[in-house]
Amino acid sequence: MSEERNTELEAVAELAKRRGFFFQSSGAYGGVSGFFTYGPQGAALKRNLEDAWRDRFVTREGHMEISAPDVMPEPVFEASGHLDGFDDMIIECPECGESHRADHLVEDNSDVEDAEAIPIEEVQELIADLGLVCPACGTELAGEPVEEFNLMFETSIGPGSSQPGYLRPETAQGIFVEFPRLKEYARGQLPFGVAQIGNAYRNEISPRRALVRVREFTQAELEHFIDPEEDEPPIERVADVELPLYSAREQDKDDGELQQLTVEEALDEAVITSPWVAYYLGLATGWYERIGVDMSRFRYRQHLSGERAHYAADCWDAEAELGGDWIEITGFAYRSDYDLSKHGEYSGDDFTIFKQYDEPQTVERATVDPDMSVLGPEFGGAAADVREALQALAERDPDAFDADTVEVDVDGDTYTVDTDVANFSVEEVTQAGEHITPHVVEPSFGVGRLVYTVLTHAYGEDEVAGETRSYLSVPTELAPTFACVAPLVSNDADLVERAEDVLDRLRSAGFEVDYDESGSIGRRYRRQDEVGTPFCVTVDHETLEQEEYDAATVTLRDRDSTEQARVPVGDLVAILSELRAGETTFAELLSDPNVHRVA
Amino acid sequence: MSEERNTELEAVAELAKRRGFFFQSSGAYGGVSGFFTYGPQGAALKRNLEDAWRDRFVTREGHMEISAPDVMPEPVFEASGHLDGFDDMIIECPECGESHRADHLVEDNSDVEDAEAIPIEEVQELIADLGLVCPACGTELAGEPVEEFNLMFETSIGPGSSQPGYLRPETAQGIFVEFPRLKEYARGQLPFGVAQIGNAYRNEISPRRALVRVREFTQAELEHFIDPEEDEPPIERVADVELPLYSAREQDKDDGELQQLTVEEALDEAVITSPWVAYYLGLATGWYERIGVDMSRFRYRQHLSGERAHYAADCWDAEAELGGDWIEITGFAYRSDYDLSKHGEYSGDDFTIFKQYDEPQTVERATVDPDMSVLGPEFGGAAADVREALQALAERDPDAFDADTVEVDVDGDTYTVDTDVANFSVEEVTQAGEHITPHVVEPSFGVGRLVYTVLTHAYGEDEVAGETRSYLSVPTELAPTFACVAPLVSNDADLVERAEDVLDRLRSAGFEVDYDESGSIGRRYRRQDEVGTPFCVTVDHETLEQEEYDAATVTLRDRDSTEQARVPVGDLVAILSELRAGETTFAELLSDPNVHRVA
Repeated sequence: MSEERNTELEAVAELAKRRGFFFQSSGAYGGVSGFFTYGPQGAALKRNLEDAWRDRFVTREGHMEISAPDVMPEPVFEASGHLDGFDDMIIECPECGESHRADHLVEDNSDVEDAEAIPIEEVQELIADLGLVCPACGTELAGEPVEEFNLMFETSIGPGSSQPGYLRPETAQGIFVEFPRLKEYARGQLPFGVAQIGNAYRNEISPRRALVRVREFTQAELEHFIDPEEDEPPIERVADVELPLYSAREQDKDDGELQQLTVEEALDEAVITSPWVAYYLGLATGWYERIGVDMSRFRYRQHLSGERAHYAADCWDAEAELGGDWIEITGFAYRSDYDLSKHGEYSGDDFTIFKQYDEPQTVERATVDPDMSVLGPEFGGAAADVREALQALAERDPDAFDADTVEVDVDGDTYTVDTDVANFSVEEVTQAGEHITPHVVEPSFGVGRLVYTVLTHAYGEDEVAGETRSYLSVPTELAPTFACVAPLVSNDADLVERAEDVLDRLRSAGFEVDYDESGSIGRRYRRQDEVGTPFCVTVDHETLEQEEYDAATVTLRDRDSTEQARVPVGDLVAILSELRAGETTFAELLSDPNVHRVA
Repeated sequence: MSEERNTELEAVAELAKRRGFFFQSSGAYGGVSGFFTYGPQGAALKRNLEDAWRDRFVTREGHMEISAPDVMPEPVFEASGHLDGFDDMIIECPECGESHRADHLVEDNSDVEDAEAIPIEEVQELIADLGLVCPACGTELAGEPVEEFNLMFETSIGPGSSQPGYLRPETAQGIFVEFPRLKEYARGQLPFGVAQIGNAYRNEISPRRALVRVREFTQAELEHFIDPEEDEPPIERVADVELPLYSAREQDKDDGELQQLTVEEALDEAVITSPWVAYYLGLATGWYERIGVDMSRFRYRQHLSGERAHYAADCWDAEAELGGDWIEITGFAYRSDYDLSKHGEYSGDDFTIFKQYDEPQTVERATVDPDMSVLGPEFGGAAADVREALQALAERDPDAFDADTVEVDVDGDTYTVDTDVANFSVEEVTQAGEHITPHVVEPSFGVGRLVYTVLTHAYGEDEVAGETRSYLSVPTELAPTFACVAPLVSNDADLVERAEDVLDRLRSAGFEVDYDESGSIGRRYRRQDEVGTPFCVTVDHETLEQEEYDAATVTLRDRDSTEQARVPVGDLVAILSELRAGETTFAELLSDPNVHRVA
């Protein structure tokens, strides 16, 4: 971690706490690691960020959005694999009792990079070989067992003979598990997408780095259900978008580099294999820019083959640089039919889509119709199983029935059946379509990490009028407060009255506006700069001098440049609307002949 | 429950499931009682309702909004009283093992109305006396123990020596516990309000009635912190609002009635005792109307004295009639300083506000300054405690020091001290202010219950063109979709192209618009009516006949009246904007000379 970046994170953490973006929860009781509360500024910023996500990935793409519960029953996680496989490696200090992530200990104290992918016994050996000690108390950890620790929070649902429940470790399961119903809302037609913004929970062994590794967090996930054989993304919409790609191939090299490729080039050169994943990388790139991610501190990193879930064909993470480290802010995964197949298998419900052929298709189907009056007496209780085995054989290997007898295995025993008795035949069947299990493309965004990234990348310090100023240059769309209205001084009733009138006007016009009259005007500007308020409107004595109300001018100050313009009150709503919609910039405004720059 | 109302609830439940408002979660695995998923329509309606709440109770009132975690550590609930007191009475069937709420069993099978307030032993006796049986299997329950069951979901935070955590049973605690920080954001000035919209969890023994009694739900809570001696609500803003009040006094009568009183009258006649509670009832009344609660099925019911928490001075519930039952949709409570005092006491942190006097006040303060060289040898280890006891005595009863000796008790022993040695004096001290613990006024809204109420009160059936039509007359502000655009038929490329163009125009203008071309136009209208879409825009052959694009007309259909008007495409955005803002009604539109009613 570079010192400068480190200082940046410390400044952001201090600002976040002091000005109400976020802070560790329950501080009065000493706090609990991994739980954060968003204060008034942070909650507003987070909400604006979620709205921007909804606009881009749900509304404009025509997808559905649902809201499912946080607590889900055990069978869901038996099927999803979380009950068995959602573990981290833990090692407990024999002296102080503190628990640590074994893989992180190894990574922090050696050149090993992806210790999570190493078998647990080897990690235990590495800890001994490296002579690692407890970071809390310094006790030797050699010989201590490394164990699997399931990261789901468990609870009990209902009284008495209660059933186990879990806080969902990802919002995605709330979508997958409702697929049988969701497909009805989509009228049984692929492709369709279902999104959810909601909380997820992971009982992290060592929460760390502010909002990066926490125990309760917000995800914005989109599950796009597609027919892998037919559906294609509208790639032309994003073909020319430039992607900063750090491919698995480059990561494996000693001198691996970031490649700047357009979506089209990345697909042509097979750097990205799935057009769906490429589509979403293209879509997301513009969105990261929109919400204020510094694209010079951003990259897409492909998962290494060992890092990928076995069912995932291609995975890329969007990563942002924070404090010198690359932090995953979004995962883009092609999850194949894994999730829906598992839930279909475990629940017995129908997780498929009936795919209608363009025209009904005639297919040959081999069937048997065994004479049970022969099979029954001959095989007794096994007769029904033998019939099933014969049908399976007919479908698998119809030629077998050319012989006089066929043999089938049932539970390890071999049964021989006369072909005559089997009544084998091949029928022509007309099928209108077939049942397919959709594949899933999943962009999964960590909302808290995005908030943290936006804050950190927006944070800046400069010098204004000989004093150091800290400011947040967050995009207008995300700013907790759009504008602040203030009288130049608070002890002049005329100024205050006029300022309150301007405030009412702006609120009536639908702007999110604050009012502030405490302290000197310079101090108020600093305060607004620190929470990222793009514009400040000040009513001063010159405002009162002008007789005609709408012609009276107020000063409008720009957060980023700290420049000020005098604009007529009557034009204020129109000017702010244009600034908010991005139809004009403050620099353009200053060059308007009707606007006077304030020296 | 009246039969008609019952049918209404069944129709709403069926519609909610079929069209994607809400349904029991994890249905593929048999479902879990008390957990519901909001489908695409319901999630949108719920979000719009939350936005309407935020607008009215946060933004327009100038309050803060925060977002705290769902999982909180145990000490919070030791202080809040939930760990010890947040229980329901449970009785388990000895035969089938099913658990039931004992108080509900009694209420359902006798004239007893508020069994929750009856001591647990008496409930057990009542069950025996009434000869109650298990509703599930019919087994006699006499003699079975009635026990307290804590309604909080418990979990463990962290690995190894983990600490207990609980899913918060109300969002309010996430606000109270952060008061020491929140008051800084309010710059230490009362009054200020802090709101939160978020999930809360209660492990209900018998979840029932769809969204009414569930285990995971969304609350919108506002905690308004006030100085009880100085702060007054702006009651003039709501003085004339009519409230349908069902006071405790009326409930106690045999022929108790609803009283229609204005806020001012209710305060003058002391039907409502707290002006703050009255203010919020006034504010909320208009809001319920705005979100579509049928005010003829609505009342404010005062808590009976036995029903109220001991610290709560006055409590009223807003209740809506659903299926013949009155359901609490909001609780309005004056919570005094209970919550902040408890957290201050348990955490040791500062949950007070420093209240500055208008002018510094000079007060007399009695102090002692005992000669420890005398007390030490005389009282040994107890000397320091004796000094403290002397100081306490000086403050409590300064006259005691007029005598030659004073006596103080320490741990049950009496110590006699010469007044000379105590060095008693009275000093004049100037104080700038004092520390006070703010009181709390809390309007607490159940979002799911509001959604359910709005849906039920909006549900209607009528006859259109000889067919029964079901529709949701939800307010435009809450409708999941604002308008639907459709070509008259889907197999005419010109119609489809023009319809898509109209769709783009409306989306660019910021409207939430659907597109639908499947099925007959009549069927599409029914579909939109059922999900409450206020307006449908249809492009037909007449649209194409007109040459000038903006002058070409489309039909605009009104959900509630099913009437249609022909309006020029060029005016569509303006007309829809006015309809959305409530600046015009569809009936007014039809009387516009430029608009033609479609026969």
